[in-house]
Amino acid sequence: MGTRLRIHPGRQDWKTWPHYDAAVTGFRGWWYPVAWSSQVNGRPKAVTVCDERVMLIRDGGTAYALNDRCPHRGVPLSLGDQQFPGTISCPYHGWTYGLADGVLAAVITDGPDSPICGKVRVKTYPVAERLGMVWLYVGDGEAPSEIDEQLPEELAGSRFVLGGRIQPRTGNWRFACENGFDEGHAKYLHRTSLWRMFKPMPVWNETGLVRRGRWVYRVQKTQHWDADFPGLGRWTNLRWWRMRPPRTTSNIGNTGAHRQVDPVIAAQKFPGFASVTMPGILRIVYPNFIHYEFYAPVDADRHLYVGVMVSFTGGVGGDLAFAVKYLAATRWLFHGSFSHQDAWMVEATDAPPERLYRPDSSLIAWRHLAEELARERAGDKDGGVDRDGGDGGGR
Amino acid sequence: MGTRLRIHPGRQDWKTWPHYDAAVTGFRGWWYPVAWSSQVNGRPKAVTVCDERVMLIRDGGTAYALNDRCPHRGVPLSLGDQQFPGTISCPYHGWTYGLADGVLAAVITDGPDSPICGKVRVKTYPVAERLGMVWLYVGDGEAPSEIDEQLPEELAGSRFVLGGRIQPRTGNWRFACENGFDEGHAKYLHRTSLWRMFKPMPVWNETGLVRRGRWVYRVQKTQHWDADFPGLGRWTNLRWWRMRPPRTTSNIGNTGAHRQVDPVIAAQKFPGFASVTMPGILRIVYPNFIHYEFYAPVDADRHLYVGVMVSFTGGVGGDLAFAVKYLAATRWLFHGSFSHQDAWMVEATDAPPERLYRPDSSLIAWRHLAEELARERAGDKDGGVDRDGGDGGGR
Amino acid sequence: MGTRLRIHPGRQDWKTWPHYDAAVTGFRGWWYPVAWSSQVNGRPKAVTVCDERVMLIRDGGTAYALNDRCPHRGVPLSLGDQQFPGTISCPYHGWTYGLADGVLAAVITDGPDSPICGKVRVKTYPVAERLGMVWLYVGDGEAPSEIDEQLPEELAGSRFVLGGRIQPRTGNWRFACENGFDEGHAKYLHRTSLWRMFKPMPVWNETGLVRRGRWVYRVQKTQHWDADFPGLGRWTNLRWWRMRPPRTTSNIGNTGAHRQVDPVIAAQKFPGFASVTMPGILRIVYPNFIHYEFYAPVDADRHLYVGVMVSFTGGVGGDLAFAVKYLAATRWLFHGSFSHQDAWMVEATDAPPERLYRPDSSLIAWRHLAEELARERAGDKDGGVDRDGGDGGGR
Repeated sequence: MGTRLRIHPGRQDWKTWPHYDAAVTGFRGWWYPVAWSSQVNGRPKAVTVCDERVMLIRDGGTAYALNDRCPHRGVPLSLGDQQFPGTISCPYHGWTYGLADGVLAAVITDGPDSPICGKVRVKTYPVAERLGMVWLYVGDGEAPSEIDEQLPEELAGSRFVLGGRIQPRTGNWRFACENGFDEGHAKYLHRTSLWRMFKPMPVWNETGLVRRGRWVYRVQKTQHWDADFPGLGRWTNLRWWRMRPPRTTSNIGNTGAHRQVDPVIAAQKFPGFASVTMPGILRIVYPNFIHYEFYAPVDADRHLYVGVMVSFTGGVGGDLAFAVKYLAATRWLFHGSFSHQDAWMVEATDAPPERLYRPDSSLIAWRHLAEELARERAGDKDGGVDRDGGDGGGR
Repeated sequence: MGTRLRIHPGRQDWKTWPHYDAAVTGFRGWWYPVAWSSQVNGRPKAVTVCDERVMLIRDGGTAYALNDRCPHRGVPLSLGDQQFPGTISCPYHGWTYGLADGVLAAVITDGPDSPICGKVRVKTYPVAERLGMVWLYVGDGEAPSEIDEQLPEELAGSRFVLGGRIQPRTGNWRFACENGFDEGHAKYLHRTSLWRMFKPMPVWNETGLVRRGRWVYRVQKTQHWDADFPGLGRWTNLRWWRMRPPRTTSNIGNTGAHRQVDPVIAAQKFPGFASVTMPGILRIVYPNFIHYEFYAPVDADRHLYVGVMVSFTGGVGGDLAFAVKYLAATRWLFHGSFSHQDAWMVEATDAPPERLYRPDSSLIAWRHLAEELARERAGDKDGGVDRDGGDGGGR
Repeated sequence: MGTRLRIHPGRQDWKTWPHYDAAVTGFRGWWYPVAWSSQVNGRPKAVTVCDERVMLIRDGGTAYALNDRCPHRGVPLSLGDQQFPGTISCPYHGWTYGLADGVLAAVITDGPDSPICGKVRVKTYPVAERLGMVWLYVGDGEAPSEIDEQLPEELAGSRFVLGGRIQPRTGNWRFACENGFDEGHAKYLHRTSLWRMFKPMPVWNETGLVRRGRWVYRVQKTQHWDADFPGLGRWTNLRWWRMRPPRTTSNIGNTGAHRQVDPVIAAQKFPGFASVTMPGILRIVYPNFIHYEFYAPVDADRHLYVGVMVSFTGGVGGDLAFAVKYLAATRWLFHGSFSHQDAWMVEATDAPPERLYRPDSSLIAWRHLAEELARERAGDKDGGVDRDGGDGGGR
C-alpha cells in the first residue's frame, strides 16, 4: 500500500512572505478600482474594498467616496441622498456631510445653529478615474500615491480603446492574482475553453522569470506539445481540428501565432508574455492588444475581478474593428467562458497548507515582488509619519 | 483636506447606563406581548421572547406558556399535542406535562406507574391577556409584577376599541424603542411617507423632556417650519399641496391640527405628545386616538414590533367609524408605509459606537429612565430573594 | 404553583460513556456505507464521512476512495477527471494521483521528468462493496478490520434480496442510532403512521435487554394495550378498524402477528425483535424479512440514514414477490412515512442535557455496548502501534 514511501511535506505556509501573508484583505496604501465610472452618479452607491464599506457618489461631474457609516447611529450613508449640492445626507436624521472633506456641515433636524456641526467627520477616500473606472486610494490617512505611477506605463502616454468586465467573485484576492500569473494551470485548465477551441496549447513549458522595474515577467523558454508520462502514457492538447503549433517560441501572445505586432506594444519591448505587479495587476500581451486584470480585495473571501482588453491601433476604423471584435467574441469567449474557469478554481483554492511545484516559480516570484514592494511602501509610510506628524518634541 | 480640524469623538459607548447596556435580549422581570390572543388556540404555538423559547397553548379558554423543551431529550414541546385535558404531551415519547405547573404528570410510554412522574418540571411563564394579546412575564422564578401596573394607565378604567399589527422585525429591541421616542428622525425620515403627504412637518424643533411618574414625555417647545443652513441653503418640508402649519405649538398630535380632543384623552392632561416607559412602551397621543408601540425582545438581533391604535370614542357609531378608518387608512398608511421606514432604519442602526446630538436628549432621557427603573426592580428582586428564600440561617 | 416540589435533575451528561461522548463525528476504526455502488462510476463523486471529505471513483470495476483535497493548492480532486487509467487528475494543474495508493504519479503541466512525482501522497481509504453499497474504512492509517465481521452475521452465508434507501439527514448520528434502538418512542410517535394504520400498537411495554456477542437485544416481556393514567384518564392505541392485539408476546415482529417464520431467520434464534451493534447498526426482525439501519456520521450535525429491507426467501418467485411488495408498499410506508417521523425527531433532539426514564434502559445498554467495543478497539489500535511501528529503541 505504498507505506514504504517517505513523503516529506516540506514548508507549506506563507511565513517567507510576512507582509503578503498578512494582506488577507489587501495591501494598504494603493489604488483599487471599485466600479465603472458610468455606475457612479447622483444616487449613492455602496461598495466594499479592503474590508471597508464605502459610499460613492458623483456631484458636479466629480466622483467622491466616503466611509459608509454615519457616526451618529451607524446607518449607512449610501441609504441617504443629497439635500444640498456638494453634500450627502443620512436618511435617518439628516446629518449632512461635505463630500470633499467628510465634515458634518449641517444637521437638518437640529436647525441652522446645531452645535455639533464641524465637530464630526467621516473618513474620505482619494478618488481618481482611469480606464473608465473609479479608483479609490485605501490608506490610513497619509497622502495618496500617484495613481498613474501604479497603472501600467504603456497606458500613460498612449491613445487606446478598451472593453472589459467588472465582476464580484468569491475567493481571496491573492488566489485570483496567483491564478492570473500562474504558469502552470492555463494549458491544462483552459484546454476545454471555447477560446482555445482552435488554438494549440502546449502540455508543459520551461519558463524563466525576469524582473524589470516593478514588474515580474514570465519568459517562455521551451514549449512541449506532447509528452510521454512514464507508466501512464502519452498526453497532448493537439487535435486534428486545431491549428498546428508554432516552430519557435514567442513571448508575445501565447497562442503560437506570429503576426505583425502593434507598434505601441512592440515599443515596450516586453521581455515576456505575462507580467504582474502590485497591488495585483496582471498584464497579458498579445500581438494586437493587451489584456489586463486587476484584483481588488473586497474582504477576506471575496474580490472584484476587473478584466480589461486594450487596443492601441487607433483611428476610427481600428477602434470600430476592436469594438466589434470585443463585443462579438472576446467578451464572451475570453472574459466569459475562459475566465469563468479561473473563477471556478480561485473559489476552490484553499491554501495554505500548500505543496508547490516547479512551475510555481512564477507564483513565488510574484510573492517575493509583492513582499518587497509592500515592505518598501510600509517603510515610506513610517518615514512619512516621522517626517510629517507626531508630537515628537526633541527633534 | 480638512486636516486642521480637531475632531473629538467624545464618549461613544453605553457605560453610563450599565443595566441598559446589558439588556441585549431585554430586561427581565417584565411583561411582554408575544401574540394575538386569537393566534393562541389548542394547537401549540412556538414563540421566542428574551431569547427564551416558549410554547403557547390554550386550554379551557385559558392561555398557558411553558418552556419549549422537553427535559427528556430536548425535543420542543410545541411539536407535540394534547392527549389529556390540561396537559401537553411531547411527540417523541409522550411525556405529559401539566399546563398550569409544568410538572410531569404522566409518561404514556412508561405506563401508569412510571416512577419519574412528579420528578421533572418544565419552566412555566405567567400569562395574561390584555388588548387582545397574550403577554408573558419573563423573570427568574420570582412572583410576577402586576401587568396592569405596567400597561398605560388610561387603558385601565376606560372603554376602548383598537386595531393593530404584530410584526417580527430585525434589529435589537433598544434600537426600535429609541427610534420610537426619538425626537429627531420623524420630521426628516418620514417626510416622504404617504401618511404625511398632505400634512406639514417642521424642519426642527426645540423640545423639552418632562418626567411624570414612570413616564418620560417629550414636550414640544418651538417648531421651525423652514431653516436657512449657513453655506448650504434653505430647507423646508412645506409644499403648496400640503396644509399650512399651525400658528401655535400643540402637544396633542404632531400634525399641527387643532381639533376637538377626545374627553378620555383630554382628562389625562398628558404633558407631551410622545411618552415612553419600561420595558419599551411608546405612547403617541393624537386628538382622537392614541397610538402605542410595544417592543418585545426576541433575541439580540430581532424584536417583535407591536403597534396598536386605540379609540376611546365609544358608542356603536364611534367604534364603527374607528374600524372603518383604521382598516381603510391607518393600517396601511401609518402601521404600514410610515412604520416601514422606521423598521428600515432600526435594521440599519449599528451602535455603539455612536455620536449623539442635541435632539438625542429624548433618547438619553429614555435610557436614564430605563436604567433607573431597571435598577429599582433589580433591587426589588434581590430583596425578594432575601425575604422569601435562601438557606440563610442566622436571620 | 407547585413550588413545594423538590425536583432533582440527576445526572444529565454523558460522562459515563467517555468514548461515546467524544464520538461526535463517529467512531474511528470502522466501516461506513457512503453510497449505492451504482452511484459510483467513472465520474468522481464527493462524499463526507466522519467529517472527512472523500472522493469516490470507479475504475476497471473497482471503487476507490481518496481524500478530496489536492495537496498542491487545496482544490477538491472530485472536481477533476481521469486522464490516465488508474489515476485521477486535479482539474487545476493536472496533478495526477494513483487511485490505489494516492501517490502523485505525474504532473501533466510539469512534464514527464517532474521532480515532485512520488513525493506527494493523498490519503486513501480502504473500500469494500456489500449489500449493493460502497463502504469506507475510516481510520488513522492502521490496517482495516474485516468488514464481514462488522456486518450482521446472517448476511454472510445466506442468499438474499434487498431494497432500501440512503438519505442524508440532519442530526447527530448518535441521536439516529439511539432513536432506532429506543424502546419507548415507537408505539407513541409512530401511532399515526400509515404503516401502522391497521396494526395494533401497545401503550407501554416491559422490556428486558440481552447481550449476545457484539449485539444487544431488546426482549419483549409484557405488552400493555391500554392504560389508565391516574388523574388524567384512559389511553390506548386500539381502534375498531385495527386488528386485535395478540394474546401472547412474540419477539419476532412487533406487530403481534404470529406467522410462519422464514427458516433463515428462525435459524438465528434471535433473542429479541430489535438489536443493535457498533458502529451504529440496527436490526429489526420480522417473520419474513429483516430491516437494517446503518447510521453513517457525516459531520457533527448530519448523518447518512441507510435503511435496508432484506428477504431470504429465495427462488425467482420469492424474489419477485419481495420486489413487488417492497416497491409497492414497504418503500413508501416504512422507509417513507414511518421513517420520516424518526427523521423529524432525530433532527429535533437536543441532548445532553437529558433526563432518562425507565424505557431508556435500551438506550443505556447501547451506550454501554458502544463504549465497551470502542474501548477494546482503541486498545487494539494502540497495541497495533506498539507492535508495528514507532521509533522505540530499547525494546
